Amino acid sequence: MAEMKCLKDFGEAEILQRLQRFCPAEIIGDDGAVLGFPPGQNLVVTTDVLVDGVHFGDRTMPPEKVGWRAVAANLSDLAAMGATPIGITVGLSLPPETPILWLDQLYQGLAACLGRYSTPLVGGDLTRSPVKTIGITAFGVVSPHRPIQRSTAKVGDVILVTGCHGDSRAGLELLLHGDSHAQTLSTGDRQALIRAHQTPQPRLDVLAYLNPSDSPPAGMDSSDGLADAVLQICQRSGVGAVVEAEKIPLSPALRRYQDPETALRWALYGGEDFELVLCLPPTAAEQLLAKLPGQGAIIGQITAEQTVAIANGAGQTMPLSQTQTFQHFA
Amino acid sequence: MAEMKCLKDFGEAEILQRLQRFCPAEIIGDDGAVLGFPPGQNLVVTTDVLVDGVHFGDRTMPPEKVGWRAVAANLSDLAAMGATPIGITVGLSLPPETPILWLDQLYQGLAACLGRYSTPLVGGDLTRSPVKTIGITAFGVVSPHRPIQRSTAKVGDVILVTGCHGDSRAGLELLLHGDSHAQTLSTGDRQALIRAHQTPQPRLDVLAYLNPSDSPPAGMDSSDGLADAVLQICQRSGVGAVVEAEKIPLSPALRRYQDPETALRWALYGGEDFELVLCLPPTAAEQLLAKLPGQGAIIGQITAEQTVAIANGAGQTMPLSQTQTFQHFA
Repeated sequence: MAEMKCLKDFGEAEILQRLQRFCPAEIIGDDGAVLGFPPGQNLVVTTDVLVDGVHFGDRTMPPEKVGWRAVAANLSDLAAMGATPIGITVGLSLPPETPILWLDQLYQGLAACLGRYSTPLVGGDLTRSPVKTIGITAFGVVSPHRPIQRSTAKVGDVILVTGCHGDSRAGLELLLHGDSHAQTLSTGDRQALIRAHQTPQPRLDVLAYLNPSDSPPAGMDSSDGLADAVLQICQRSGVGAVVEAEKIPLSPALRRYQDPETALRWALYGGEDFELVLCLPPTAAEQLLAKLPGQGAIIGQITAEQTVAIANGAGQTMPLSQTQTFQHFA
Repeated sequence: MAEMKCLKDFGEAEILQRLQRFCPAEIIGDDGAVLGFPPGQNLVVTTDVLVDGVHFGDRTMPPEKVGWRAVAANLSDLAAMGATPIGITVGLSLPPETPILWLDQLYQGLAACLGRYSTPLVGGDLTRSPVKTIGITAFGVVSPHRPIQRSTAKVGDVILVTGCHGDSRAGLELLLHGDSHAQTLSTGDRQALIRAHQTPQPRLDVLAYLNPSDSPPAGMDSSDGLADAVLQICQRSGVGAVVEAEKIPLSPALRRYQDPETALRWALYGGEDFELVLCLPPTAAEQLLAKLPGQGAIIGQITAEQTVAIANGAGQTMPLSQTQTFQHFA
């Protein structure tokens, strides 16, 4: 059967032809792709590398989901810059014994997420390697005065998140440990949490709701965790913040799955929720919130103190720490 | 000593800070880089992945040279599209036990080649992996009607190469087998051939010599070999070609190093010479040749026959084959 075949059973030209089905016909066959570029815009570029066993694995992720997430993470970085995507490239390294079906399914996942956000796959490279590695570079456009940056948060701004946090971490837990902690979880809750982990939605939709006559908000995405995002923005902007724990939106599924303390820890440190964390004046934040679909919320304020604290409902505060964030080489 | 330390001895933030020295200060610290874009231009994108043990190795290449070549290959792809570079991103995956010095030297090599062609490093990602892997995406700009494509060669065009071929393969041979075949080679010849392999020069300079009132030539670079380039252009353009073996420029060092048959084989199939192979009308080709520094030459003609042949000085021809070209998954 063709589906049982591996990359080594095919010639390079044959494999490339197979992958080119996912590219617009007009850009195939040269040393690079040529893309039209809207006048008066700036170019935004972002890149990510995913390694088998580090960022994905067969245990938690079929190849379609690996592809979806890889694209979603990069499109989320563009959204976090206020940029609209115009294309991505994919640099793949795969062992010769990789089933051709794995490659097909990876590309189906890439294409599904790209299609959802009307973004073409405009180039790539495929080479052999002992380890499956996926490098994605995404390109977008932004008006010269509209990029969202980490460094522009101001005292008096409020901190707005565009959706729930902690679900991705909960979905990972369910994939890794299955039923052991979750006997009471409904199928619907379970599926919602796993979906949050496997097919995250980059918040490109949020850009359309920003008022173009306001200054762009400060911000970034919460791919490395909500705590990390607040800490990074404060550090780069030279400000502090107070985050109110009870205002962080948690999904009903997560609340039913975990005790409040675990849910909060996952919301702050779990990462990969791919929401936007934006800092903007209170009125602008309220206006944005009114337009946002889903469970956005104002979760805190930017302060003049150089500390970043989290407050509970009882008025107690403690410093928000970075210690639980992921260190690649630790 | 700091130089003996490995990546795992450093925090992620510390390593990223080290690498950010190589980036322009204004683009650091956000989810993506923002780049100005010249009005009325198109964007050209190309990407390449290099894997330790497949595309480079300690035996033939110190890390600075790995870095230089990785950039040169991508800038050559831009040159092959007629595009001027505006930036690159680097996605790196490295084992935690990689010496920090290796990383520093890789970046010094990347920066040396980028500096030579006034191109900024505008982003990257660094992650752990069992295998050293370098993914580079380069982007450039080209006027909407100026891209060089493979598909536009016309009957009556001549085939021009912008420089010598075979030297890169000869340099590799010297690096792999040292003195065994080369007792008589001078130090100067040896160094020239090794330099051709380790620090190739992408032919971005050629773009300035093309007459902007002519149609752009058809073409591509010879990174996968001169034979491959001629075959690809003919296949994509629906034409044939005759290449005259004796007109392919070979360096004096290569002629002194190898017999004529080996030298020709390396020129045709060795690859990685990173010259441009251009098809254009005879008068335009002569004009370009007059301006080109180095050893450019007109090596053949585009024909209406659907065959690609190579002719020797005695008037004998044989089909130019693709069988000696590199198949990644073979």
